Amino acid sequence: MTEPPQGDGPEKHFAPDVIATKRDHQRLSDEQIDWVVDAYTRDVVAPEQMSALAMAILLNGMDREEIARWTHAMIASGERMDFSGLSWPTADKHSTGGVGDKITLPLAPLVAACGVAVPQLSGRGLGHTGGTLDKLESIPGWNASLSNEAMMAQLDDVGAVICAAGSGLAPADKKLYALRDVTGTVEAIPLIASSIMSKKIAEGTGALVLDVKVGSGAFMKREDQARELAETMVELGTDAGVTTVALITAMSTPLGLTAGNAVEVAESVEVLAGGGPADVVELTLALAREMLTAAGKTDIDPAEALADGRAMDVWRRMIAAQGGDPDAPLPEARESHVVTAPSGGTLTHLDALGVGVAAWRLGAGRSRPGESVQAGAGVVLHAKPGDLVQDGAPLMTLHTDEPARFDRAMEALDGAFTVEPDARAESSPASVVIERIG
Amino acid sequence: MTEPPQGDGPEKHFAPDVIATKRDHQRLSDEQIDWVVDAYTRDVVAPEQMSALAMAILLNGMDREEIARWTHAMIASGERMDFSGLSWPTADKHSTGGVGDKITLPLAPLVAACGVAVPQLSGRGLGHTGGTLDKLESIPGWNASLSNEAMMAQLDDVGAVICAAGSGLAPADKKLYALRDVTGTVEAIPLIASSIMSKKIAEGTGALVLDVKVGSGAFMKREDQARELAETMVELGTDAGVTTVALITAMSTPLGLTAGNAVEVAESVEVLAGGGPADVVELTLALAREMLTAAGKTDIDPAEALADGRAMDVWRRMIAAQGGDPDAPLPEARESHVVTAPSGGTLTHLDALGVGVAAWRLGAGRSRPGESVQAGAGVVLHAKPGDLVQDGAPLMTLHTDEPARFDRAMEALDGAFTVEPDARAESSPASVVIERIG
Repeated sequence: MTEPPQGDGPEKHFAPDVIATKRDHQRLSDEQIDWVVDAYTRDVVAPEQMSALAMAILLNGMDREEIARWTHAMIASGERMDFSGLSWPTADKHSTGGVGDKITLPLAPLVAACGVAVPQLSGRGLGHTGGTLDKLESIPGWNASLSNEAMMAQLDDVGAVICAAGSGLAPADKKLYALRDVTGTVEAIPLIASSIMSKKIAEGTGALVLDVKVGSGAFMKREDQARELAETMVELGTDAGVTTVALITAMSTPLGLTAGNAVEVAESVEVLAGGGPADVVELTLALAREMLTAAGKTDIDPAEALADGRAMDVWRRMIAAQGGDPDAPLPEARESHVVTAPSGGTLTHLDALGVGVAAWRLGAGRSRPGESVQAGAGVVLHAKPGDLVQDGAPLMTLHTDEPARFDRAMEALDGAFTVEPDARAESSPASVVIERIG
Repeated sequence: MTEPPQGDGPEKHFAPDVIATKRDHQRLSDEQIDWVVDAYTRDVVAPEQMSALAMAILLNGMDREEIARWTHAMIASGERMDFSGLSWPTADKHSTGGVGDKITLPLAPLVAACGVAVPQLSGRGLGHTGGTLDKLESIPGWNASLSNEAMMAQLDDVGAVICAAGSGLAPADKKLYALRDVTGTVEAIPLIASSIMSKKIAEGTGALVLDVKVGSGAFMKREDQARELAETMVELGTDAGVTTVALITAMSTPLGLTAGNAVEVAESVEVLAGGGPADVVELTLALAREMLTAAGKTDIDPAEALADGRAMDVWRRMIAAQGGDPDAPLPEARESHVVTAPSGGTLTHLDALGVGVAAWRLGAGRSRPGESVQAGAGVVLHAKPGDLVQDGAPLMTLHTDEPARFDRAMEALDGAFTVEPDARAESSPASVVIERIG
């Protein structure tokens, strides 16, 4: 056993002692939390020390005050933005990630069309859930990187901006997330909640609506976990002065009929044109209503802004402001493969995770940060749970530029769908929205 | 979340999956254990991954089969030695470390004098418990580093060798221990047991006696922890074909009257000369009897070999064989400071940890691997718990080459001893040996 080095410098704490505190089921003090987050950012606390602490937090938990302090320390590691000078109220949305979750694309222009500005700082995807920036980058010319000034000007002018989060917001979180990803410590609700909320609070939005997904294709597989995460985040936001609401929404089957990049942009444009799959429309409107209410606009029906084309107008201006051509044809993959129904009957089960992993393996997602993705790759569904299908009819089409990827994508789909004669859909939810918290 | 990289090389497992298995309270499979220990040795599993796994093992445990496999994997990471060609039976001893624990010094020559060879591969100290090699290095000329051939020749000729363990035995353990030391993951019984036993089994001893210390100055503070560790190690040794026995022994007050390096050598020589403190003599003989019995020599009384000078003869030959001069005066520290009794009465309490930390801070121990230690530094006690002391009489003398160290050594002694009028010693144990397991 070692003892803290004596007189070796100005460090106020000793990493093994902080780790041992949580290991031994004790509360971390405010001073310990402030120090360990800051010292990790400064490379004084080593990755192998932070990962051991993260595992102790995962297994032994943190209470509400510890989580709030941890979030505060991550915010303090970087800069904060301020939208209070805008002529619009602001509201932001965060989704915990799902398969086919393109909701940000129609939602941001829709809410802006109703008078609330949406500063959507997004990330790229990793794993089987796609990234909003990856999807938008399939639009020819569209640029994800904006300076703070350009972002603010677009927000004031158009009312909606979807762009890459700068490295200045909560840098401790960025570093910690990369560590958790390789050390089996992602699945800790205190760390998930503080990771999401530190960025959103630092961003300075006035109101925040959280879409906490639950089901096979989501990070949270069980409703009790999703509820705990949602409640933790709503508390964190509220305590920090941000009006925060969470919807718990279904992610056992893909959202809409597409999972990929360009294919999801096309579906989003359909929604903005007044069409699109019912579940995507339902969730877009539910989130829009929550954002408008949280921003103080309780008398506006976003369905009208979808129907009369105002949301589409904002979409076109938003894309064009970032160099994109809203009229350009979207990229298409070079190869496709149709998966057919093995028998006639009802599609009773279509697993979100299986479809998500298939889309990822087709080239729509990446396995490591920095890898490129294929704009045209992905899965297009021809049936959803509850639909009747004919024997041999197309169930879905797989798209990729590299046909060698079909085999492993098909492996991911093994057991991912079930067609039963004379059956009812096993768990076709009445509504995508399961519960509201806040 | 990331997925295992596809087709990226020959690795059979993915570190985050192995970590998640233990995190989620599952058993690690033999294949997972073999892979993770080997891959960590090969730098394929990163330190931050291994420390997260170590924390998960600490908090969620391993069963007997997992511990045995982990030990086996650490042995397989390096070479194994073989003493079967010697003309002597062999027995080794391992102590979990305590304050004033110089027992190896008289024990090895004593057991050799009784016809059982002792191959004692030792380490240097870290923290408040001293290292056997550090103590012996205070003897002018003595050399800790021997080639395997020189060690084997000395063992055959003298019957006892105390030297540095080569880096070839269980290199995975060496690397893992250094990691655990800075990540708050030392205190895991499965990892402690496998660390100790992997080295001892790889070393190839025929019999092994474990001295598992319990009390304030020991690693294990509670008897139930010490018993669990002892039972785990005895099982591991027995399963590996090594006759293994453990004694649980008291470490609430220092062993003998000295804690340091040269001062402990001097006390060891007193024991070999037929004198020395009663507790040191008792424990030396108890361990010697266990080692002789485990090696099949049940008819020999080691007390005779102490009394008639045979043990001292082997000591002199053992020291000389490694370049040391057994007749050279031992180094003495330049400065000393006497701690006196604050009142008259009975010394009821003398804390092992306080004395150990004081000796360490005086310069007898190191805070980081590779630091040098002072040969003459340490603490010499003038009274033990149960002794009557006069008001103002010397309780102990502190020794160091650097008088600036006295202040922090005295801080360590604050509250470490109690003199009470008309009192009985609070917990002066009838015997150093508390329990025998095996």
